[in-house]
Amino acid sequence: MIFPNFLLASLLILTGFSFAQQKTIRARDLGIPFDGITGRLNAITDVAGVEVGHTTLIEGSGKLQKGKGPVRTGVTAIFPNGKKYTPVFANWHMLNGNGDMTGTHWITESGFLETPVLITNTSSVGTVRDAALAWMDKNLHYDTSQHPFWYSYPVVAETYDGVLNDINGFHVKPEHVWQALQNAKAGPVAEGNVGGGTGMICHWFKGGIGTSSRVIDKTEGGYTVGVLVQANYGSRRQLTIAGVPVGKELLDTLQMIIKEEPLAKNTKNMLSEMGSIIVVVATDAPLLPHQLKRLVQRVGLGIGKVGGTGGNGSGDIFIAFSTANKAAFSRTKETNAVLYSNDMINGLFTATIQATEEAIINALVAGKTMKGINDNTVYALPHDEVIRILKKYNRIK
Amino acid sequence: MIFPNFLLASLLILTGFSFAQQKTIRARDLGIPFDGITGRLNAITDVAGVEVGHTTLIEGSGKLQKGKGPVRTGVTAIFPNGKKYTPVFANWHMLNGNGDMTGTHWITESGFLETPVLITNTSSVGTVRDAALAWMDKNLHYDTSQHPFWYSYPVVAETYDGVLNDINGFHVKPEHVWQALQNAKAGPVAEGNVGGGTGMICHWFKGGIGTSSRVIDKTEGGYTVGVLVQANYGSRRQLTIAGVPVGKELLDTLQMIIKEEPLAKNTKNMLSEMGSIIVVVATDAPLLPHQLKRLVQRVGLGIGKVGGTGGNGSGDIFIAFSTANKAAFSRTKETNAVLYSNDMINGLFTATIQATEEAIINALVAGKTMKGINDNTVYALPHDEVIRILKKYNRIK
Amino acid sequence: MIFPNFLLASLLILTGFSFAQQKTIRARDLGIPFDGITGRLNAITDVAGVEVGHTTLIEGSGKLQKGKGPVRTGVTAIFPNGKKYTPVFANWHMLNGNGDMTGTHWITESGFLETPVLITNTSSVGTVRDAALAWMDKNLHYDTSQHPFWYSYPVVAETYDGVLNDINGFHVKPEHVWQALQNAKAGPVAEGNVGGGTGMICHWFKGGIGTSSRVIDKTEGGYTVGVLVQANYGSRRQLTIAGVPVGKELLDTLQMIIKEEPLAKNTKNMLSEMGSIIVVVATDAPLLPHQLKRLVQRVGLGIGKVGGTGGNGSGDIFIAFSTANKAAFSRTKETNAVLYSNDMINGLFTATIQATEEAIINALVAGKTMKGINDNTVYALPHDEVIRILKKYNRIK
Amino acid sequence: MIFPNFLLASLLILTGFSFAQQKTIRARDLGIPFDGITGRLNAITDVAGVEVGHTTLIEGSGKLQKGKGPVRTGVTAIFPNGKKYTPVFANWHMLNGNGDMTGTHWITESGFLETPVLITNTSSVGTVRDAALAWMDKNLHYDTSQHPFWYSYPVVAETYDGVLNDINGFHVKPEHVWQALQNAKAGPVAEGNVGGGTGMICHWFKGGIGTSSRVIDKTEGGYTVGVLVQANYGSRRQLTIAGVPVGKELLDTLQMIIKEEPLAKNTKNMLSEMGSIIVVVATDAPLLPHQLKRLVQRVGLGIGKVGGTGGNGSGDIFIAFSTANKAAFSRTKETNAVLYSNDMINGLFTATIQATEEAIINALVAGKTMKGINDNTVYALPHDEVIRILKKYNRIK
Repeated sequence: MIFPNFLLASLLILTGFSFAQQKTIRARDLGIPFDGITGRLNAITDVAGVEVGHTTLIEGSGKLQKGKGPVRTGVTAIFPNGKKYTPVFANWHMLNGNGDMTGTHWITESGFLETPVLITNTSSVGTVRDAALAWMDKNLHYDTSQHPFWYSYPVVAETYDGVLNDINGFHVKPEHVWQALQNAKAGPVAEGNVGGGTGMICHWFKGGIGTSSRVIDKTEGGYTVGVLVQANYGSRRQLTIAGVPVGKELLDTLQMIIKEEPLAKNTKNMLSEMGSIIVVVATDAPLLPHQLKRLVQRVGLGIGKVGGTGGNGSGDIFIAFSTANKAAFSRTKETNAVLYSNDMINGLFTATIQATEEAIINALVAGKTMKGINDNTVYALPHDEVIRILKKYNRIK
Repeated sequence: MIFPNFLLASLLILTGFSFAQQKTIRARDLGIPFDGITGRLNAITDVAGVEVGHTTLIEGSGKLQKGKGPVRTGVTAIFPNGKKYTPVFANWHMLNGNGDMTGTHWITESGFLETPVLITNTSSVGTVRDAALAWMDKNLHYDTSQHPFWYSYPVVAETYDGVLNDINGFHVKPEHVWQALQNAKAGPVAEGNVGGGTGMICHWFKGGIGTSSRVIDKTEGGYTVGVLVQANYGSRRQLTIAGVPVGKELLDTLQMIIKEEPLAKNTKNMLSEMGSIIVVVATDAPLLPHQLKRLVQRVGLGIGKVGGTGGNGSGDIFIAFSTANKAAFSRTKETNAVLYSNDMINGLFTATIQATEEAIINALVAGKTMKGINDNTVYALPHDEVIRILKKYNRIK
Repeated sequence: MIFPNFLLASLLILTGFSFAQQKTIRARDLGIPFDGITGRLNAITDVAGVEVGHTTLIEGSGKLQKGKGPVRTGVTAIFPNGKKYTPVFANWHMLNGNGDMTGTHWITESGFLETPVLITNTSSVGTVRDAALAWMDKNLHYDTSQHPFWYSYPVVAETYDGVLNDINGFHVKPEHVWQALQNAKAGPVAEGNVGGGTGMICHWFKGGIGTSSRVIDKTEGGYTVGVLVQANYGSRRQLTIAGVPVGKELLDTLQMIIKEEPLAKNTKNMLSEMGSIIVVVATDAPLLPHQLKRLVQRVGLGIGKVGGTGGNGSGDIFIAFSTANKAAFSRTKETNAVLYSNDMINGLFTATIQATEEAIINALVAGKTMKGINDNTVYALPHDEVIRILKKYNRIK
Repeated sequence: MIFPNFLLASLLILTGFSFAQQKTIRARDLGIPFDGITGRLNAITDVAGVEVGHTTLIEGSGKLQKGKGPVRTGVTAIFPNGKKYTPVFANWHMLNGNGDMTGTHWITESGFLETPVLITNTSSVGTVRDAALAWMDKNLHYDTSQHPFWYSYPVVAETYDGVLNDINGFHVKPEHVWQALQNAKAGPVAEGNVGGGTGMICHWFKGGIGTSSRVIDKTEGGYTVGVLVQANYGSRRQLTIAGVPVGKELLDTLQMIIKEEPLAKNTKNMLSEMGSIIVVVATDAPLLPHQLKRLVQRVGLGIGKVGGTGGNGSGDIFIAFSTANKAAFSRTKETNAVLYSNDMINGLFTATIQATEEAIINALVAGKTMKGINDNTVYALPHDEVIRILKKYNRIK
């Protein structure tokens, strides 16, 4: 059996960083070559202050019964600077807007991110948004002794997991959101079928959460760029690893099993309509909001290297923040900010592209075969096949 | 009964268009002069196909007890083309982004609005969003016989009613959202303390929902532009009616009573931080998405005429749609669209500005004095004083 | 004779601030009421460091002979911080893009304005752009001892003066651009028929250059906002002064005389297609680029107060810069910047709106009747009539 | 001698498509593998109506004498629909804005491109812009019998050729612009050191003009996407061909010879600051302006595949137009437009990415070693080395 735990027929919630996930194999473990120097954990949490928490919801099996399951979903929370009210400079970009990310208008206007960033499935954005607001109302908001009325616009993004999950059963509940928030921590980040990434599909293999980081040269400040993706995009044919057309070589290998009509008859066109990738970029480099806008657009180039095209059905929305100017935010007075030189910024651009590429491949490498609603099945990327193909193209010795 | 708890003496839900509201006085009834020719109802529903529904929640009084009340809030739903799945061309603009409007990314990308537009309070955006999605899942989505997996990004906007309402008590429930959607209809639109506008404040008088319309010249196509606002912005000093500085003349008249510290000591600065105005523009003129982007930016000029400045605390986010090209949307084939000439568009720009200005003043004229949480009190615009001042400046004979 | 100087039949170049222009009457001289506190000069040059230079080209009369004249045009140059290479934070916005402003892409990307801003007629943008580049190559660029290859993207904007000027005769020559640059200075700024504004039309009266400034409250930093407009937009009917519908009252007064067919038969519709307004906003408040984006969008609200609608034929493009962080730019290292609090920014927004409104009316008040190509004639705003109408509406005692 | 023609010490202007250039080797001639189906010419001119003209200016050798030379520059003109006034739907995107492209504001606003697109060097944008306007004034503008005053905003883009060319000598003259416009034609397009691309550098090899096209599947409409690039960006290390890290393999091969201090000492960092790539995308698919915005953003993914990162010094600005709706433009009445289904658009996205990638590599393959100012020398991509490396990585048999 692939998913013996499903036999328990009871709610299994895996939160945070479980022992099982610590052993997850990552792309570099397979020998896949990448450029650039990673941080210690090769994770978004290499940027000091960043905390990540997952709530993973896996329950039931077999035929879809809306509202009952099967459930293959979750929520992931990322704090820019721990569980403190520390607005940080931020900005966002979309390569393709077939998706949603709440809270972006105020980021554009103010230059600041004032909330954690949460990622979930398409249908649960609202629940996650209001639950995060309620959590902030209790735990994390600005000083109401100065202003009794507080409000906020939580940033919540999504990708679609309805191929495996009873998405319109609305199984993410406020308590799951609170769990992800409360359990968020620094340190290693679970990848693959966890949190918001639980039921995701990437290049028609099992996708989900992936992360990576880069450290730029000392002469450029030695800063870190960390990336976390919820990868759910792309077609098989496009998949490219280390420049090698892996997807073409695996075109007929481990095809997804999808039962719904007419999709079963026309997998190719239909599914290219449903992907998405949400990318969160963290850095401790002192970038102003307009510089973060520059940085975050480069995420698309990293996706492109893995074969993504920002397809019509894909919600490719990215957010970047800088933890550098923690004292820049004030409601009452002028403050000071450190400003990175535009002329020095190329190292950060390259770091963002590289970390995005590796984070996606980490998501693919960590993804485990999953059977979901109606026994739809999405297979894990076959590691041995990838190694074989990269050797064929002389990218692994 | 579906909502037995509503029978409890204190809970009052006013949905749709009640008799009481039919008698609401409007700005023109006071003799306030406006430019341009209105449609039959002088409402957004003058654009054929547009339907509006309100759920108004007013319950309790006295001291704020989070989760219990008092409740002064609601939700307003606007269908572009009735309760059918008819994606229409749309676009949006923000004058100031201290607010949220979900679903805008896909509008930018696709050019289409595929959902109703809903407006509520700041803390209920998520509830309204997911409830609208659930309602669409049951009632209004694209043909799943062609594609079994459907998803959507409901457009939900908000303004802050926490001065009068127990906003973080989350009193808007999914059933209230469904009511607003189900009760939406063509015809006259209730204004003032209704729907999403129930607890809103505008230029420090009672604000809320307002609407207006304009019909452009036959030689330019004779099209209609309809506007609906949820007006919750502005300071007293700025209020301008028909070019007359009414706010300055009423600077000390009927000041709001706000009990919370430190706001009570510093009303001016604090409150200028909390306004917002959401504006929905409907037209039957055949504008493409990039032309609707042009149209919707003009909303700001209408707000400016009433004295708005897009203040920092204001979420001034606007959406416009055109009902003209109802067959433009297709998932499978090329379609045809009619395209309005850019050189002819000035009449539509002017209509948008004029209808926005009048809709705001209609919201002010319709607003009724309201006492909310902690007995905070916001007074209705004193009609007789407005008339007196406009006479003083020779704008009313 | 209205233009005796035309009889000289020779090139008359008025550069900089001439004696005649010092005596120009301004809007406040007529008693027109405005809100807010102006700087000392009520000009963009109230922001320390800002320098303005005009080259005015008026030559010939009678029938248009392309390449010969009559000439009614010029160029205006604005230095953000004197004739030094001091990149300053900047941003831009367009209310309507029927116009051009070169150099905006790099401002968006970098956050910095590295060149003077120049304004001329539509057909001379290229000449002015390359001449400014040549002037910078000689006088004003970054340190080539660090980098031998320098380049720049001069910011050049335009409005259309072809109703009065032989616009496609290309009469602005590189030397005129150099003159405007060289002659730029602090102090009073000539208004009306000068510089780039020489041949401009506003609300069907004679328009051109206008300027104004505001100083915000000490508690908000006491900063200055200065505005300079090249006003060439709008129809007669829309003209609004101090909230009073002056344009409607003067609908048939001093109509332009335009000889060209078919325009002569259809003045109203045709001319509403040709206006434009370029607005330059300077401030010494320490705004970051994304905050300047906020500020500069408010320019449109000021235009709206005078009656502008961003008509289709209008190129309403605005640029704002802050002189505060003069040391923020570096090609080689991190720097520090002061950051204004978003929560305090409303005073700057209001200042921008007010100064824009007054600058436009100053342009109208300063404009003098001009006869141009084919004896087309545009009349000056009749001051006595304006006073009479404002008295009628009780806005002047 | 490398450039014996320089000995002639006279102006050599190569316009249009010369015999020598017909024999230019292209990337596919080397066996480099690409995805997708090309059009007949594998050029932007595969889109019917598109015409391309080059003026190439190569004169002098040796030490730079500003204003005298050496000259290594030119101008390229692209007509969307021949030498007719046929506004076509268009839009643009920038990956990095260290560059200029005039005329974009009106494209954003109107949705139409009304002029040819011209590409030249950074310092000649103004000359080219006004010369194009003068040429249009004589040859190509809207019907002045309907409106006597016409104006236009020519679209002129640039990349920096000052490493090889006396760029601030302003050697592009109006007559050169007219030549490029007059000589524009359908058919094969010269690549490499021609037109605006004459003095350009790409990944530290000789760059310049390149072109390619793709034809999408009949089931998606069988439309063509054509791309033309002026490629002047990138560092050696990044160069990637067919996914293979060619640049790393050629890191020390045929390094540029640059004499200027301090650049000679610090080639790597300095030059990564000066690149740029302008990309023009043509299609006959019936895309509306907002859909062209989608298409044109994908250009960046194609650049990313070759190794571009949108570096700080790079002006990566792209424009796309559709020739499909030739009758969509009208100044006086409503028109009809065909609209492509968003759900079908992926083939066009992929085509754009693929054609961009191949056009850049075509520019590199066609580029010929050039010696310019101060005998600075940039070498051609060594074809045999590229073949050898692609064989090493099993991408060429």
